Amino acid sequence: MIPFNKPYLTGKEAHYLYDAVYSGKISGNGKYTQKCHEFLKNKYGFGKCLLTTSCTDALEMAAILINIQQGDEVIMPSYTFVSTANAFILRGAKIIFADSRTDHPGIDEHSIESLITNKTRAIVPVHYAGVACDMDLIMNIAKKYNLFVIEDAAQAIDSFYTGADGVKRALGSIGHLAAFSFHETKNIISGEGGMLAINDPQFQKRAEIIWEKGTNRSAFFKGEVDKYGWVDIGSSFLPSELISSFLWAQLENLEDIQLTRKRHWNKYYEGLKDWALKNEIKIPFIPDFATNNAHMFYIVAKNANQRHSILKKLKDNGILGVFHYLSLHKSLFYIDKHDGREMALSDYFSDCLIRLPLFYELTNDEINKIIEVIISESYHG
Amino acid sequence: MIPFNKPYLTGKEAHYLYDAVYSGKISGNGKYTQKCHEFLKNKYGFGKCLLTTSCTDALEMAAILINIQQGDEVIMPSYTFVSTANAFILRGAKIIFADSRTDHPGIDEHSIESLITNKTRAIVPVHYAGVACDMDLIMNIAKKYNLFVIEDAAQAIDSFYTGADGVKRALGSIGHLAAFSFHETKNIISGEGGMLAINDPQFQKRAEIIWEKGTNRSAFFKGEVDKYGWVDIGSSFLPSELISSFLWAQLENLEDIQLTRKRHWNKYYEGLKDWALKNEIKIPFIPDFATNNAHMFYIVAKNANQRHSILKKLKDNGILGVFHYLSLHKSLFYIDKHDGREMALSDYFSDCLIRLPLFYELTNDEINKIIEVIISESYHG
Repeated sequence: MIPFNKPYLTGKEAHYLYDAVYSGKISGNGKYTQKCHEFLKNKYGFGKCLLTTSCTDALEMAAILINIQQGDEVIMPSYTFVSTANAFILRGAKIIFADSRTDHPGIDEHSIESLITNKTRAIVPVHYAGVACDMDLIMNIAKKYNLFVIEDAAQAIDSFYTGADGVKRALGSIGHLAAFSFHETKNIISGEGGMLAINDPQFQKRAEIIWEKGTNRSAFFKGEVDKYGWVDIGSSFLPSELISSFLWAQLENLEDIQLTRKRHWNKYYEGLKDWALKNEIKIPFIPDFATNNAHMFYIVAKNANQRHSILKKLKDNGILGVFHYLSLHKSLFYIDKHDGREMALSDYFSDCLIRLPLFYELTNDEINKIIEVIISESYHG
Repeated sequence: MIPFNKPYLTGKEAHYLYDAVYSGKISGNGKYTQKCHEFLKNKYGFGKCLLTTSCTDALEMAAILINIQQGDEVIMPSYTFVSTANAFILRGAKIIFADSRTDHPGIDEHSIESLITNKTRAIVPVHYAGVACDMDLIMNIAKKYNLFVIEDAAQAIDSFYTGADGVKRALGSIGHLAAFSFHETKNIISGEGGMLAINDPQFQKRAEIIWEKGTNRSAFFKGEVDKYGWVDIGSSFLPSELISSFLWAQLENLEDIQLTRKRHWNKYYEGLKDWALKNEIKIPFIPDFATNNAHMFYIVAKNANQRHSILKKLKDNGILGVFHYLSLHKSLFYIDKHDGREMALSDYFSDCLIRLPLFYELTNDEINKIIEVIISESYHG
């Protein structure tokens, strides 16, 4: 069986885990956490980095930082993970869902402005499959209406956006805040894990406080205050050094991991593009302003029946393809809270998208086999 | 220098970490998470166990489970960690602080009933130093007023309470819910980490959903539902297998860890009791209904000046004693929200308590040295 995902170990994870364990410091904010913060900030130009126990937690920190209050509205795509929405709902927000683009599961940037009311506080673009949303468009709307932009960059490590100014910026460095995931299904992993990038300087001091359970402990250790105490709301957002030492081994090998994943991705692309075109099946679209971080290779069938046939064919040949999100506006939890607007494209991607196996150790033979299995039929939908 | 704490490794941590890493499953809710759940449930008679990324997160799950709403009141001691309070404040609660006992930093159980209003929803007793609060008294009040009891058992692993019925019950198995910590400063550790014990069956199904980001994913994997989706609020409360595999090594050695810590604790007790009595300095008091899990050995000076002298003496002799909480009702964050009641005992413990080094690898010679340094003076306060 070719699995959908296999966590990749660079070889140094256990070494750094040992080092953390035997150094006697395995709670949070130790040596490896600092190393990860510094590396990520410097490499991608984030304002400030704070590792978290998950991307969910990074989004929750963002919701606290922008001070979401009961009834505030937050705009995000319906085609996303539940945590994108839950993080804001936990603070009392109402979620205003937007539909996807026709060419891509990401948020339809042009639909955002019409969803803004005087209660709107934030836009949360999700860089689906690590492919940038049109950030110029989104940042301009945010500026016009005085909104915060929180990039859900869960899948978007090492991916970029080039705006009208011609500058190529890392995803997660553009919005006021951005959340990343290091879940084992991502390019760079730590089992569970995430990071908040804090680009807007107004949030940087408070972010440290919220991260440290609402105390000014970080300031205390930096010698900025005499003693530390309870100064704000907050949670235990910081991960153990067991997590950050593991992550450090991954970050050291980021270039190699990315090159390998891109090679796999390109092989899929070359092998499937003619078949896809002929059969009106979508494969990933990378806009000119975006780069590809090879987080995901997906195909989009014409309808649910066709997807079912493709998934079955894959399974019959020992290949695990998987679908992805289900439109959140139609979920059991939110359907009664949603304003009733149809989201045809979000539903289409919910019904028709298939993610193909993509992980470091996938072999050329395996990719060739997957391609052959797929293109051997046209799956009349 | 004798440190205050040194995380203890049983020797198997790295082995199980390796096993988790090479098994290819390092996200949450894998083999080691299940082993920890089962072990803890069976050993201590908890209704259901769910590991969390921290005790803070376990308390947050509890606040969600009892459905705390804006303005609900929650009673807890002022002498506790900020997370005890923040977890409920994040859901909109108002904290009603109670003072400590005269003989112990734990909540004065007899003061609770007078703090109850028609807005009170829960009581959160904190088993300070792993020593039980009088749970019969608290559970009876809760029953009378239809309140939930959430045990903050952060320090209370492997400690017990014997009620009027003569049954010896594990702390954390008595309240409707209970939160434990496996932070590196605790008896049993995983760097950062915690657990929610869910004793009241009405919460057990929903707890799994909240734990899994508000989805019914657990039910899906158990074959109880056909597909899983968004059904509730929730967060990413579950820890990586990196954390639970480490924790498993600790749990396998729980008996040895506890025996060793108790030997250290008893040595402190025997060495300091006469000096303490003579100098009117408090040392730990274990009520008849409680057991001692040797989480902490503390002494309580007569006043802040005397504490300062003792801490200085220790430091001058290469020993790190540390104080503990600061009254939360007087914190920068809460002083304006507090109703103004004085909490003399909470302030007294804030000003006067010293925790002495206590960890597995502490030697008899080191304990003897610490005792000798302390009893060589009477520290006129």
